Amino acid sequence: MKLRAVGEDALLASLLRGPPVSQRVIAAAGDDCAVVESPDRKTSLVLKTDCVVEKIHFAPAADPILVGWKAMMRPLSDFAAISAVPQFALVTLIVSATRSTMWVKKLYRGLQRAASRFGVGIVGGETSATRGPAVISVSVTGFVEKGRWISRAGGKKGDDLFVTGRLGGSLRGRHLRFVPRINESRWLTKNFRVHAMMDLSDGLGADLPRLARASKLAFKIDREKLPLARGAKIDNAISDGEDYELLFAISRRDRERLERAWRKKFPKLLLTRIGRLSQFSIKASPARTNSQLLPGGYVHFK
Amino acid sequence: MKLRAVGEDALLASLLRGPPVSQRVIAAAGDDCAVVESPDRKTSLVLKTDCVVEKIHFAPAADPILVGWKAMMRPLSDFAAISAVPQFALVTLIVSATRSTMWVKKLYRGLQRAASRFGVGIVGGETSATRGPAVISVSVTGFVEKGRWISRAGGKKGDDLFVTGRLGGSLRGRHLRFVPRINESRWLTKNFRVHAMMDLSDGLGADLPRLARASKLAFKIDREKLPLARGAKIDNAISDGEDYELLFAISRRDRERLERAWRKKFPKLLLTRIGRLSQFSIKASPARTNSQLLPGGYVHFK
Repeated sequence: MKLRAVGEDALLASLLRGPPVSQRVIAAAGDDCAVVESPDRKTSLVLKTDCVVEKIHFAPAADPILVGWKAMMRPLSDFAAISAVPQFALVTLIVSATRSTMWVKKLYRGLQRAASRFGVGIVGGETSATRGPAVISVSVTGFVEKGRWISRAGGKKGDDLFVTGRLGGSLRGRHLRFVPRINESRWLTKNFRVHAMMDLSDGLGADLPRLARASKLAFKIDREKLPLARGAKIDNAISDGEDYELLFAISRRDRERLERAWRKKFPKLLLTRIGRLSQFSIKASPARTNSQLLPGGYVHFK
Repeated sequence: MKLRAVGEDALLASLLRGPPVSQRVIAAAGDDCAVVESPDRKTSLVLKTDCVVEKIHFAPAADPILVGWKAMMRPLSDFAAISAVPQFALVTLIVSATRSTMWVKKLYRGLQRAASRFGVGIVGGETSATRGPAVISVSVTGFVEKGRWISRAGGKKGDDLFVTGRLGGSLRGRHLRFVPRINESRWLTKNFRVHAMMDLSDGLGADLPRLARASKLAFKIDREKLPLARGAKIDNAISDGEDYELLFAISRRDRERLERAWRKKFPKLLLTRIGRLSQFSIKASPARTNSQLLPGGYVHFK
């Protein structure tokens, strides 16, 4: 079978099913980052790698500063997803030997600028030639206090679902300039009991079902309430992807306090309640969707 | 200027010259791994990323199990180089969607087998499509006790230079099957005061000058003494690369004890004294080489 027919989620799941890793691993593949034991009792180590590939994640003519920015910010957004603090990055550049050094320097300026924004140090790297498209792979190490990191799996029946920012149309430019919601995520877990969280990278229509499935729940969404980016329609907010906003589940008892505190702390960033987690029911099959519902637990909008 | 004209060392050096990273960084680029502060007082975190690229580091027809083995063992060899212990790995696969899933499964089996050999857990991964050659990038996190890690820079005048194993001809097959010298390296730093160490990845002719330069010394090598792999000639031992053996500098006062203890501990693995570190002299220019000398501090044999 060709890879094309399998899909990344299924492939990674099967690949990472290897021999059981030791008890040092707190959370491995499937969540946004790997969380592993650190030598320190109060914190866990957090690891994440991500890559951008020319012609897939950026156009050959894209500004290399922005490409570098995106390559660094993507794994940092996964730190936001679980409320961890990134610290160190390693960068692998795989580029054609015919590429100009100026392009690479600009790329690196973007990487460095993005890293500095969150106090991350680029502590090592590796370059290799290729005759194919350029690849920039960034792996990030950081930490999270024990008991503070948030997985996708902790959502409870009846929880409110919130998203930060506005969704849709990211590929018109925002995907190269976004700022991961690390500060917002850390503030959330400092002040609230967030039950489940992730960052929206593949689009709400693909990512929300993942959070719900991990929490063994279904969900109800009010499509009309989705916060739309300028020029985006509801379908864009659901399917476009690369929003890099936070999606999280929190008890409705916290709703009012959250909305009030958020407006005060982040007056420029929208926080929108888009729906809630609901009981999973076998009857809620993909066929029973209507305009008020995304399919409960199925990826439908890819 | 095209990248081709610059070379990896120079490029990485210039790229990583960015804003100073914080004091949390103990050693960054230039050494085999990055060594950074861990939350724990007794150890430091160690980070390393490395990649293999189809048509550069492996042939398209190579056994994917061996390709996976090599992709994992390369960064582990950098842990051996500084005497650190690898713990967790993240794997990025960038492959064409037309590649068979069987190829990817075998690749992963090789990665897993190599990781298990050293108790390393593969805790996360990432796949992406490409239309170009396959890339496997592996980043590894681990630790080293404070004061135990060895850089390339600590060599002292008059130190003996040793290499493990046999050199040359690796590309005939050994480069896909090598076992990083982690156990040997940890044993060395447990029992001896090693002054400077690295792993031989680009060949003695390129790597030894790096160690000497980092230690601000020159070196004298007895070419006739180089331990040759079967079928290899002296020039192969100097220039072929991909040996993944240890090169280290140690006081000659330790010579006898080291050689005796080594034979007892690792009876099947050769340890060879190939020369010594010497005073750097401006007169020792590349032009003054003879059959008894590699150029002192210059990369000559690439």
